Amino acid sequence: MRRELPSLTLGILGGGQLAQMLALAALPLGVRVVVLEPDPQAPARLCAEHLHAPYTDAAGLARLAECSAVTLEFENVPTQALEALAGRVPVRPGAALLERTKHRAREKEALRAAGVETAPFVVIESGDDLHGALASVGGRGILKTSELGYDGKGQARVNTDAELSAAWAALNGAACVLEGQVPFVREVSLSVARTAAGQVAFGPLIENIHRDGILRTSLFPAPGAELLEPQACELARVCAESWELEGLMTLEFFVLQGGSLVVNEVAPRVHNSGHLTQDGGGLSQFEAQVRAVLGLPLTNWRPLHPTAMVNLVGAASVEGQPLHPDWDAIDALSGTHLHLYHKTWRAGRKLGHVNLVAPDTGTLAERLAELERLIP
Amino acid sequence: MRRELPSLTLGILGGGQLAQMLALAALPLGVRVVVLEPDPQAPARLCAEHLHAPYTDAAGLARLAECSAVTLEFENVPTQALEALAGRVPVRPGAALLERTKHRAREKEALRAAGVETAPFVVIESGDDLHGALASVGGRGILKTSELGYDGKGQARVNTDAELSAAWAALNGAACVLEGQVPFVREVSLSVARTAAGQVAFGPLIENIHRDGILRTSLFPAPGAELLEPQACELARVCAESWELEGLMTLEFFVLQGGSLVVNEVAPRVHNSGHLTQDGGGLSQFEAQVRAVLGLPLTNWRPLHPTAMVNLVGAASVEGQPLHPDWDAIDALSGTHLHLYHKTWRAGRKLGHVNLVAPDTGTLAERLAELERLIP
Ligand SMILES: Nc1ncnc2c1ncn2[C@@H]1O[C@H](COP(=O)(O)OP(=O)(O)OP(=O)(O)O)[C@@H](O)[C@H]1O
Ligand SMILES: Nc1ncnc2c1ncn2[C@@H]1O[C@H](COP(=O)(O)OP(=O)(O)OP(=O)(O)O)[C@@H](O)[C@H]1O
Repeated sequence: MRRELPSLTLGILGGGQLAQMLALAALPLGVRVVVLEPDPQAPARLCAEHLHAPYTDAAGLARLAECSAVTLEFENVPTQALEALAGRVPVRPGAALLERTKHRAREKEALRAAGVETAPFVVIESGDDLHGALASVGGRGILKTSELGYDGKGQARVNTDAELSAAWAALNGAACVLEGQVPFVREVSLSVARTAAGQVAFGPLIENIHRDGILRTSLFPAPGAELLEPQACELARVCAESWELEGLMTLEFFVLQGGSLVVNEVAPRVHNSGHLTQDGGGLSQFEAQVRAVLGLPLTNWRPLHPTAMVNLVGAASVEGQPLHPDWDAIDALSGTHLHLYHKTWRAGRKLGHVNLVAPDTGTLAERLAELERLIP
Repeated sequence: MRRELPSLTLGILGGGQLAQMLALAALPLGVRVVVLEPDPQAPARLCAEHLHAPYTDAAGLARLAECSAVTLEFENVPTQALEALAGRVPVRPGAALLERTKHRAREKEALRAAGVETAPFVVIESGDDLHGALASVGGRGILKTSELGYDGKGQARVNTDAELSAAWAALNGAACVLEGQVPFVREVSLSVARTAAGQVAFGPLIENIHRDGILRTSLFPAPGAELLEPQACELARVCAESWELEGLMTLEFFVLQGGSLVVNEVAPRVHNSGHLTQDGGGLSQFEAQVRAVLGLPLTNWRPLHPTAMVNLVGAASVEGQPLHPDWDAIDALSGTHLHLYHKTWRAGRKLGHVNLVAPDTGTLAERLAELERLIP
């Protein structure tokens, strides 16, 4: 590949910030990017050819079919789009893997089939399924819609049968999974990439701190990584191989008291927690996904020095007015790298992130405390 | 600035690889980029709004005048374009500084006026100027056209009066500068940025190794930087302040035996040698130029770990056929970051560069030796 310059083109289903950052990583590799995305204000339009059309648009899909390979930035790609592309261009990850990861129950079943531990769970598809469900997951549960949940949306904590029934009614009786609440001590994530030829590489283990169900801060190195990372890589490899991953996927884990890992969920793509790899001196997760999808050589990717990421989520005053971070103070702080997505402000919307680097973990912790004070 | 997201727009005169990399650095800051560039295949078109028109096009200049500020990626901006923008939008660096740096004789005179050492030189504008010129610069000289030279083009080494006359005739009697050959032990460079408000920041000192008049390899840290860097920063500050720099400029230096510095030339912009700042964990020179031009907070920028850069220059076989680097081997080598400009191959053309990072200078040297073997 790439004997002539430039020669590779990557198609992406979706044109949000992940597609934008994939495109920013692809261009320097000599790879042109085409995104199919109905939103006229899609962040990726600024650095990619933007096919401004529905995901199922025939002309748009025909243009994607001309690319070297197609990847995606979100799991809920319409099956119709995948079927239209089948046999015309490699789509990575492929339809079978996407069918699993876009559906919580199927995903958990597939994880278990691969021998990977998950939270206890019960599938809730009818009122009958509610009976005894809570007790069977340990008496304290989280009800989640099987499809289309993100950033903690479509979820409710339930500690009694009455709460469970009410929560399910509030979700309009949608197909759900009831999970047992896992008494985790921390949350970590790890990405794995695999080429069609079967080459496997891993990202670093990253610690994640959530606020209101949204990722707030990620940290590298994750505390305890010496013990956790080999375990996480092994679980990731098992999933990647048994699911025949082509491309990149990310596993979110709960860390239990004794240090064992339970998989929370799997995203078939780069992940918010991995944004910190952009400024750590190693490959970024975005370059790793591009390389894996196009079959370019892959190595494990990890920052050369301690790094952190803080999300910039649209914050609002009590009156609902935008509360902006102190941009100048962020820029002036040593070690910051700003990443804005060119999205308009909306309360609760991910608008960007700040990566932070430091020569050692002590300095990183100090700078991080300062940075977090600047972000409402 | 930047209270609303996104709000800043940067105009660039020129759309080559420097504009491309400025745009790739600007986007994550929430800054949109517009380039004015007649070449339909301009590298920057892939990540910026491309005004496909001559630099003096009235409509193109009117669009640039709507930007927050305008900068440039080459020194030979037509005076007419600068005049058309004057008073409508800040152009940084400004016309007075550009007038100096685009003309070797004026640049050297301005350096001397600021008290900065240059090679001995004589201005050659008529046949009369040739008399005694070589002797006055020390008997061994380099004849350079005053304008439009780059990558060693428009230059000739001359060691006798006859060679000087012949060289000048070969340059069609163009206005020239005859410089004395400086017996340097190495070459280094350093960039300085200054905001309109007068805030000054410096890039790292970088060592440069040329081949056939074209930069081949750059290295950070530069050997001997402890002694050389304070001197280089001081010279850069003097130039930046006395020339009232707004934006970023780069000084190329000769290092003499005893460790003193002589300025070779000044570029009013990011510089090929500074490309290694893209992957070193600190700010990149591109982000530094964007920040300086837009008046965003600036700090000194330098990699967090040892880095090198090797240029990818179009190489040809004896039959004139393209000789391509071993892309897969480059990607597979630990610590490499590929940067391709999406330009078609041409012998001698800069097509991209590879940045290389390593945890320590010993490892960097080993990897660099390996990398250089992969690039014809
Ligand atoms: N079974 C569980 N036990 C304990 N905590 C949980 C459980 N499931 C979810 N959580 C908490 O809620 C957070 C969000 O849950 P989950 O990852 O399922 O949501 P999501 O909507 O898919 O979010 P995202 O797409 O951002 O990952 C988790 O990171 C964790 O903090
Ligand atoms: N006066 C000099 N004495 C010794 N060597 C010189 C002198 N001038 C130039 N050289 C050598 O030639 C190289 C290119 O010269 P110069 O920087 O003037 O060329 P240029 O065409 O402006 O190149 P570029 O734009 O790539 O910097 C220098 O880096 C140096 O190696």
